[in-house]
Amino acid sequence: MDKNEEKQREEEREQVVSPWEVSSSGKIDYDKLIDKFGCQRLDQSLVDRVQRLTGRPPHVFLRRGVFFAHRDLNDILDAYEKGEKFYLYTGRGPSSEALHLGHLVPFMFTNRYLQDAFKVPLVIQLTDDEKCMWKNLSVEESQRLARENAKDIIACGFDVTKTFIFSDFDYVGGAFYKNMVKVAKCVTYNKVVGIFGFTGEDHIGKVSFPPVQAVPSFPSSFPHLFSGKDHLRCLIPCAIDQDPYFRMTRDVAPRIGYHKPALIESSFFPALQGETGKMSASDPNSAIYVTDSAKAIKNKINKYAFSGGQESVELHRKLGANLEVDIPVKYLSFFLEDDAELEHIKKEYGAGGMLTGEVKQRLAKVLTELVERHQVARAAVTDEMVDAFMAVRPLPNMFD
Amino acid sequence: MDKNEEKQREEEREQVVSPWEVSSSGKIDYDKLIDKFGCQRLDQSLVDRVQRLTGRPPHVFLRRGVFFAHRDLNDILDAYEKGEKFYLYTGRGPSSEALHLGHLVPFMFTNRYLQDAFKVPLVIQLTDDEKCMWKNLSVEESQRLARENAKDIIACGFDVTKTFIFSDFDYVGGAFYKNMVKVAKCVTYNKVVGIFGFTGEDHIGKVSFPPVQAVPSFPSSFPHLFSGKDHLRCLIPCAIDQDPYFRMTRDVAPRIGYHKPALIESSFFPALQGETGKMSASDPNSAIYVTDSAKAIKNKINKYAFSGGQESVELHRKLGANLEVDIPVKYLSFFLEDDAELEHIKKEYGAGGMLTGEVKQRLAKVLTELVERHQVARAAVTDEMVDAFMAVRPLPNMFD
Repeated sequence: MDKNEEKQREEEREQVVSPWEVSSSGKIDYDKLIDKFGCQRLDQSLVDRVQRLTGRPPHVFLRRGVFFAHRDLNDILDAYEKGEKFYLYTGRGPSSEALHLGHLVPFMFTNRYLQDAFKVPLVIQLTDDEKCMWKNLSVEESQRLARENAKDIIACGFDVTKTFIFSDFDYVGGAFYKNMVKVAKCVTYNKVVGIFGFTGEDHIGKVSFPPVQAVPSFPSSFPHLFSGKDHLRCLIPCAIDQDPYFRMTRDVAPRIGYHKPALIESSFFPALQGETGKMSASDPNSAIYVTDSAKAIKNKINKYAFSGGQESVELHRKLGANLEVDIPVKYLSFFLEDDAELEHIKKEYGAGGMLTGEVKQRLAKVLTELVERHQVARAAVTDEMVDAFMAVRPLPNMFD
Repeated sequence: MDKNEEKQREEEREQVVSPWEVSSSGKIDYDKLIDKFGCQRLDQSLVDRVQRLTGRPPHVFLRRGVFFAHRDLNDILDAYEKGEKFYLYTGRGPSSEALHLGHLVPFMFTNRYLQDAFKVPLVIQLTDDEKCMWKNLSVEESQRLARENAKDIIACGFDVTKTFIFSDFDYVGGAFYKNMVKVAKCVTYNKVVGIFGFTGEDHIGKVSFPPVQAVPSFPSSFPHLFSGKDHLRCLIPCAIDQDPYFRMTRDVAPRIGYHKPALIESSFFPALQGETGKMSASDPNSAIYVTDSAKAIKNKINKYAFSGGQESVELHRKLGANLEVDIPVKYLSFFLEDDAELEHIKKEYGAGGMLTGEVKQRLAKVLTELVERHQVARAAVTDEMVDAFMAVRPLPNMFD
């Protein structure tokens, strides 16, 4: 192993981003990730173009770089500019009952911005089959979690006349299964090993799954929605750890007669303990859950949120906070919508005029409001509403 | 490599039997195959037991050893003796339009014997997805072939009140897909490589397929037929090259709460050119097709059927035919139902009293009658009948 190889290996050890693992010895280097995955940076000119085309100010997640990378977003916008519509596809692996704030990011962005701004339909895949296989849940338990998660997703405010939610266990079959077979024919085992790192001791369910996540990118997988619209384009908002699935999908798409899906990719919502990975479902103290009480939120923030402030008030007044590593400021930059207030906090806190406790208090208020709003909305989601979103049906006015 | 290993390798080279390849440098050694696969010989005492339990003389394929091996057939019969019913599962990979006689063997045995004698329901899987992936057919072409093959299967005389025929492309989904996932979770990639010999350059469709062929062995895959009957046993009549699929299935079955399916396995119907493998769909002169004319049958037999007779009439009269390698006699032992006549032919021909030409003439008559009967029956199979057999429906009187 020569020096360069050694260096490369070390870098790879430092930062692992796959659909199953996100870890890093330091901060995730998103520039490096863009290079490694081969996607493009979502730069200001593209944000401006979205604003121009939709006539709407960019969503906070867009203007603050939460969604920071893309693939072929320009092609989607070119087509849109010529009057051609597209559809959105996002999803969730229902591995746990309660969602945390990081889970909400793609749904908030898709719902409160993309779908509304572009006036396009949305399909949401709940990969209960995946979680049944990876997490060794029973079929029944994964289906139960899928329905529970669907309630949280619906609580984000999606429009039932433009949104189709489906669980793989319910929906795989027919045109969807045919497309799975078409995709599977185009991908060798060596290829999925290269992309996903499977080993011979992994079960074949894992090897069989990538086509299941691939095919919602193709309109013919949804005959009740897009019959006769095989050339409809698809835009996928997702966290960047899902990129490997869609690299594979984009490789296959033209070979089976479809457009490559475009992607708009987010960074990870950091754990309370600091920005070295995503939040972990296995450590409840690493995240704020949408089921947390106001008291729990306050406690978690005060106890666990990694602070960039100094060790003593005196030192803090003198040196100010290190905003680069400060989790309360990170969280506020996701969820405090007021740009002026955010700038004010960053300036004051960075200069030492504001203390960690004050910033944490502001954050607790912002998150409590968000979570309580979500809880109220979620409590209003009935089983009938879930059935309505998940009914296999046409969406007659989906492009209006 | 020591001597033993060398010998074993050589033996393996000599005889390859897998779902995709049957080849041998000499005659297939079925005893060796039983040892290698680990199934049991279907001996006379078991044939007698079937006769005793069903009150019917054994089918010609049973009493002449065409079905020569089994797995757990005794368990099925034990349960049957106690009044417990079972169901039959067989299938076909629709890779070609016209079936040859070898393709009919499992269907004739299932229809004219097993189903009737035991009064049990039957599911027939058409693996159009498999053929789409292995033979690189389009989805549409594999589905068309599945329907065409269904007509030939129906022409064998199946009872629509006891028989459900399905194509994977139509039927995969719901409970069937859930069982696919349950099976896939239990089988590692290394395991399927050991069983099926896949390589890293094989596409993942091949790796994904074994669970599709496995799950019709489990009653819950057919909720419209066997709802609430999860402990119903399954008996699979098939050619022995399908054994690898069901070895895997039997390994998984108890881990997901089902009985291991039992098997009753046939030898291969030999090619006209001699008994070194199965007939090949790619060489039309290696087989008699159910679409062949009387003239074509006569020609093929006269021209290609490998004879055990001697080179000259004089020598033949003196030495007699070698029945061990004689294809006309082999074919007659499949399809000439009259035991006495068959014995007579074997005796006379073996002693030189009967010439090859006479035996071939008798065979041509037997096969022409069989094929013409099939053609008449097939011409009467309408699209409506295919729809009726393939309708997803209960079979209310399936055990009567």
